[in-house]
Amino acid sequence: MKKRKNKKTERSFYTLDAGDLRLKLEELYAEYAACLDEERFEDWPEFFTDPCLYKIVPRDNFERGLPLATWLCESKGYLVDRVMAIRKTAVYAPRYVRRMVTGMRVLGWTDAMLEVHANYVALETLQDELTRVLNAGRYRDKLVVEGGKLKFREKVCVFDSILVPNSLIFPL
Amino acid sequence: MKKRKNKKTERSFYTLDAGDLRLKLEELYAEYAACLDEERFEDWPEFFTDPCLYKIVPRDNFERGLPLATWLCESKGYLVDRVMAIRKTAVYAPRYVRRMVTGMRVLGWTDAMLEVHANYVALETLQDELTRVLNAGRYRDKLVVEGGKLKFREKVCVFDSILVPNSLIFPL
Amino acid sequence: MKKRKNKKTERSFYTLDAGDLRLKLEELYAEYAACLDEERFEDWPEFFTDPCLYKIVPRDNFERGLPLATWLCESKGYLVDRVMAIRKTAVYAPRYVRRMVTGMRVLGWTDAMLEVHANYVALETLQDELTRVLNAGRYRDKLVVEGGKLKFREKVCVFDSILVPNSLIFPL
Repeated sequence: MKKRKNKKTERSFYTLDAGDLRLKLEELYAEYAACLDEERFEDWPEFFTDPCLYKIVPRDNFERGLPLATWLCESKGYLVDRVMAIRKTAVYAPRYVRRMVTGMRVLGWTDAMLEVHANYVALETLQDELTRVLNAGRYRDKLVVEGGKLKFREKVCVFDSILVPNSLIFPL
Repeated sequence: MKKRKNKKTERSFYTLDAGDLRLKLEELYAEYAACLDEERFEDWPEFFTDPCLYKIVPRDNFERGLPLATWLCESKGYLVDRVMAIRKTAVYAPRYVRRMVTGMRVLGWTDAMLEVHANYVALETLQDELTRVLNAGRYRDKLVVEGGKLKFREKVCVFDSILVPNSLIFPL
Repeated sequence: MKKRKNKKTERSFYTLDAGDLRLKLEELYAEYAACLDEERFEDWPEFFTDPCLYKIVPRDNFERGLPLATWLCESKGYLVDRVMAIRKTAVYAPRYVRRMVTGMRVLGWTDAMLEVHANYVALETLQDELTRVLNAGRYRDKLVVEGGKLKFREKVCVFDSILVPNSLIFPL
């Protein structure tokens, strides 16, 4: 029974008109940013399918087709590992990161996969310091419907600067 | 007659579907930002109910439940006072502030009150200086329908940095 | 036949409800930003009618009604000239510019012309430098329907700071 219900929901995503789909995506991207901004990192892998591709890559490398990436995760387990590193092993100064997402483009479905691009800027605040731009770039995402929800099959963060004021400790 | 019309509009907000409500809120937040960006401060209290709660509070204090706030207004009269201060008594260097709001989350109605969260960043430009980040954080708002319009019963601006490059002269 | 189809599309823009029109505009502004962010400058004039008005002007001048503008283009040919300058004649350090647009206000149709305002911030990244705020301000646009599409009859970028960290090489 549950499966049938999911199938129905899945079908409904494909038949949504452009405006309704855009609104669903705005909602999803806002939830995604809030999850990270509020440091609910344990919930973060749930936005992805398994396997998946999560990549943070400088624009120069991306545009030249060079493989080197700053972060590369190819499964949910790898994302969970990242969260463990943030919680347990990584050493870093306390900070807040806030993500602003704009300019979403819904590029359409291909083989049950939805391509979505959007601009992001991550603002970082270290303790007793002013807020500054940490990283700006473009999400180049592919989403699929899984269990009645849109999930990231691929999330590629192509960022403009090779430099970041500190290391990228938290996900984008 | 007028009252009946308002009642009808009020009911219509509660029954709006998620997408339409989101669009109404995007519109409202854009009007709110424009009102402040264009320094039409006298119109600003009209976005609120009376009484209301307008608060600007550092994230550290907010998350620990500490009461100290940078700004605290508990009625429309207090908001009007703030505007008077900006216009008449406060001494400050000329500046422009621009507010960018993204990542709106419509968290739903509880007892005729609508909870909405969104990210904001305020950019400040002093005369003959470059534009910089003044303050970034999260609006944690509660809205009610009054006179056929959505108004802020509560607007709490939780900001990431304890430091601001100058004092907060204008509202967020 | 083609003309009739276009006429039909044109009529349909005028009769769109507020929410649908807003969604169309969000899409258009996202396409516009992506065109420039991805440096597809040759496509940029196609967002405009001919003649058109494209202007970048400091807020101080705009508010006092002073005519001086940083950029002023009054036809598509002039926009094409700008692109030629970027590609062929201008000398400048390599850079990426990313445009974030928020707070769109759809102010309505007057004489088949649609007035739209929105906030923008342009983030600039020079090679081996951190990303920083290049320019923030307000789009004050007028759009018309041409060939079944919304196009800019006027795009006036009113920016907050007289200073920019470098010259404005790329359009906003």
